[in-house]
Amino acid sequence: MSGSFAETSDEAAETPGVKSPWRATILTLYPEMFPGPLGQSLSGKAMAEGKWSLDAINIRDSATSKHRNVDDTPAGGGPGMVMRADVVGAALDSAAPADDPRPRLLMSPRGKPLDQARVRALAAGPGALILCGRFEGVDERVIEARQLEEVSIGDYVLSGGELGAMVLLDAIVRLLPGVMGGTESGTEESFEGGLLEYPHYTRPREWEGRSIPDVLLSGDHAAIAKWRRQQSERITRERRPDLLDKG
Amino acid sequence: MSGSFAETSDEAAETPGVKSPWRATILTLYPEMFPGPLGQSLSGKAMAEGKWSLDAINIRDSATSKHRNVDDTPAGGGPGMVMRADVVGAALDSAAPADDPRPRLLMSPRGKPLDQARVRALAAGPGALILCGRFEGVDERVIEARQLEEVSIGDYVLSGGELGAMVLLDAIVRLLPGVMGGTESGTEESFEGGLLEYPHYTRPREWEGRSIPDVLLSGDHAAIAKWRRQQSERITRERRPDLLDKG
Repeated sequence: MSGSFAETSDEAAETPGVKSPWRATILTLYPEMFPGPLGQSLSGKAMAEGKWSLDAINIRDSATSKHRNVDDTPAGGGPGMVMRADVVGAALDSAAPADDPRPRLLMSPRGKPLDQARVRALAAGPGALILCGRFEGVDERVIEARQLEEVSIGDYVLSGGELGAMVLLDAIVRLLPGVMGGTESGTEESFEGGLLEYPHYTRPREWEGRSIPDVLLSGDHAAIAKWRRQQSERITRERRPDLLDKG
Repeated sequence: MSGSFAETSDEAAETPGVKSPWRATILTLYPEMFPGPLGQSLSGKAMAEGKWSLDAINIRDSATSKHRNVDDTPAGGGPGMVMRADVVGAALDSAAPADDPRPRLLMSPRGKPLDQARVRALAAGPGALILCGRFEGVDERVIEARQLEEVSIGDYVLSGGELGAMVLLDAIVRLLPGVMGGTESGTEESFEGGLLEYPHYTRPREWEGRSIPDVLLSGDHAAIAKWRRQQSERITRERRPDLLDKG
């Protein structure tokens, strides 16, 4: 999916000139976790203003067995439990019709690492269907059959995909039109220019014997811009040389 | 900090043979977001059982100005607001004495990317003091003066550090002693062996014309282990060749 998704999506075509609110549907065994932190602060305000919406659907509602099992032991043995393909498949099908234009994501440590470019592309689209994995993982067949895109938020293991989904949504929502106050705040930040952000300072001018660098108080805008650029480059070189190799 | 922190920490020395519960202190402008998702599921159960504790402290309580401001405009100009060094410094000092053995972390996109090795090292320690950044960032002087370790959960920008702190804590808590049921589940996972996890399957044996691979139903444990290893290597090679270069 490219960054121009919004201009070519079915939804935009249905109502020319009017963009529907960005729409998230979460499939989870813990619907009560949502909206949670997303109901507060920036994303909560944007939700209250109708700039995006969130539905959390309980995967267990799609279980058909007597005990409403959603998981079973792994074929071939091993620890833990695996989420069943039939239950997850039914949950996905009930949450969105086959022609739903939204990408179908699975939060998973096996996924492609999330980056700001993917966040921007998702924010430009109509929304996302997000499956939160639990236990050892999800039966591979439903990942293939429903063409789920596996997304990882980082190289560590969480107890489930719910926090990953919240991280993804927080990153997306702040980029939606009208959500952030200063438009510049969305662009002049870590990763947006391929560099980590420069150091920030504010009042008081002196604190515990430490001063704000003179250049920032000089009023010389060109010198300030140059200093910030140099600092960004220095910090990126010291901490994340891999970002410089990418760019 | 090495992985052997628990054996050499002051806390372990104070009460030989008895390890205090892992202790998180969060400094945030949104204390009401906590415990949030961490109060449920695995981490919520572990918290209820006293295996870890969480305090969320409002940074604003340390503001001394008439309007209890925590932020101010950036020195040198630019968009957004910067968290004040004096307020954040006072909040850190009130939350933990100078000799508190816990690492002091700042959730920040400029930080070192979190990985499972760092999660394991933190889980082996006494806890963590976690500062959640907001706005454009935190005055650089307090980061230096209080020797904050900047930690990034991934290469994307969030509206604040709160979700990052939750992600970090969820990853840590599941590794604390006695938190996970099957001990093997903690090790046989993505990243723990430097590889992404192999595909999982469970009942039903046939679903939408897709079968569980024969080898997993063979009962031949050596063949199953070999297949899984090959699948892990294939998936890692396809999706994350960078992990193979590291190992």
